[in-house]
Amino acid sequence: MSNKRAVVLLSGGLDSATVLASVRAQGFDCYTMSFDYGQRHRSELDASRRISKALGALEHKVIGIDLDGIGGSALTDSTLAVPQAATQGEIPVTYVPARNTVFLSLALGWAEVLQAYDIFIGVNDVDYSGYPDCRMAFIQAFERVANLATREGVEGRTFRIQAPLQSMSKADIIRLGTQLEVDYALTVSCYQADLEGRACGNCESCQLRKQGFINAGINDVTRYF
Amino acid sequence: MSNKRAVVLLSGGLDSATVLASVRAQGFDCYTMSFDYGQRHRSELDASRRISKALGALEHKVIGIDLDGIGGSALTDSTLAVPQAATQGEIPVTYVPARNTVFLSLALGWAEVLQAYDIFIGVNDVDYSGYPDCRMAFIQAFERVANLATREGVEGRTFRIQAPLQSMSKADIIRLGTQLEVDYALTVSCYQADLEGRACGNCESCQLRKQGFINAGINDVTRYF
Repeated sequence: MSNKRAVVLLSGGLDSATVLASVRAQGFDCYTMSFDYGQRHRSELDASRRISKALGALEHKVIGIDLDGIGGSALTDSTLAVPQAATQGEIPVTYVPARNTVFLSLALGWAEVLQAYDIFIGVNDVDYSGYPDCRMAFIQAFERVANLATREGVEGRTFRIQAPLQSMSKADIIRLGTQLEVDYALTVSCYQADLEGRACGNCESCQLRKQGFINAGINDVTRYF
Repeated sequence: MSNKRAVVLLSGGLDSATVLASVRAQGFDCYTMSFDYGQRHRSELDASRRISKALGALEHKVIGIDLDGIGGSALTDSTLAVPQAATQGEIPVTYVPARNTVFLSLALGWAEVLQAYDIFIGVNDVDYSGYPDCRMAFIQAFERVANLATREGVEGRTFRIQAPLQSMSKADIIRLGTQLEVDYALTVSCYQADLEGRACGNCESCQLRKQGFINAGINDVTRYF
């Protein structure tokens, strides 16, 4: 009997690497997907490839999309500055319009072809930084779309969009990944990492990550420049 | 006072050209979007550009996505044959996995940047050819995603996903477009159109279109090879 298949979205960061390790630990055959969407921090694409391989995924696919042409985010638009300080209660300029909707849609397309009925995404409500498309209500609404949009939905199969980190703190995520032997030195969270994947240590994403290791009481293996 | 803005998805075909004409007639400033996703019938991209210009859209954007890498459809996968006959009650091999979900997601991203709260898509339940992502239930579910995924949803603005052709027959669509002076010679519906946009006349899409002109009692200006 063959294993169940899962599509796992990989950003190259700490959260999605932890998701992949936990999905593998549940016995799924994993197919990982990343996106080349004109992001500034292109070293995350290299990180995703390394993480996929290190954690035993069967196939890794990088899908190119020119979100760059749409504009509107400091992560893809070189005319906007990446902020250095974490902001409270506001949607930050690093928000990419409709990003998770686009990513889940493409994951859904591949999942249909693979007959993989579980799609995993590493979004998180606690450290969600004000991105609206990281909320549980969004994930649930997308799951409904998935089951109406597809052959499988018509034929009575059910897709599940799973966000296992949804209610975990960064420290909890790091503790889980450490138990599962994720090598966090492979992961890149920094919005302005260098070509070798080394982090600035100052941007919002770096600050959240640093504090997570401190709160977890686990040695921070992140490479800083 | 500036006009309301709308994002209109253009496929290069007859239906979406009619949608654009009707949205312009409602007084919207129109921003049109097409997708280069490795489709066989690339002449539809040229058709979209011509239609956008002829019908007075303010900007036309072509977004590249490599759906090709996902596989699974006769429209993008050159190892699958395009069927010649229309099929009843089955989802055809020309179905592209999650296509409308991907397209609406990218339209939503651009709509956020433009502050355009109306997104139009030319799907149709009558002639829908068994594609699950052309049904009204799908459109409604996606509208919910749009309003949960975005800043605007958080801030209380509302996106509307509009499918004005939803319950119209092909003949009704052709009558409407003819009233609005759409030049259907610019449009390409054929799954295997040649580089000049001339149609085969035999594939499922050509058959539906031909019959539509006959049923409408309107002269068919389609260019066949």
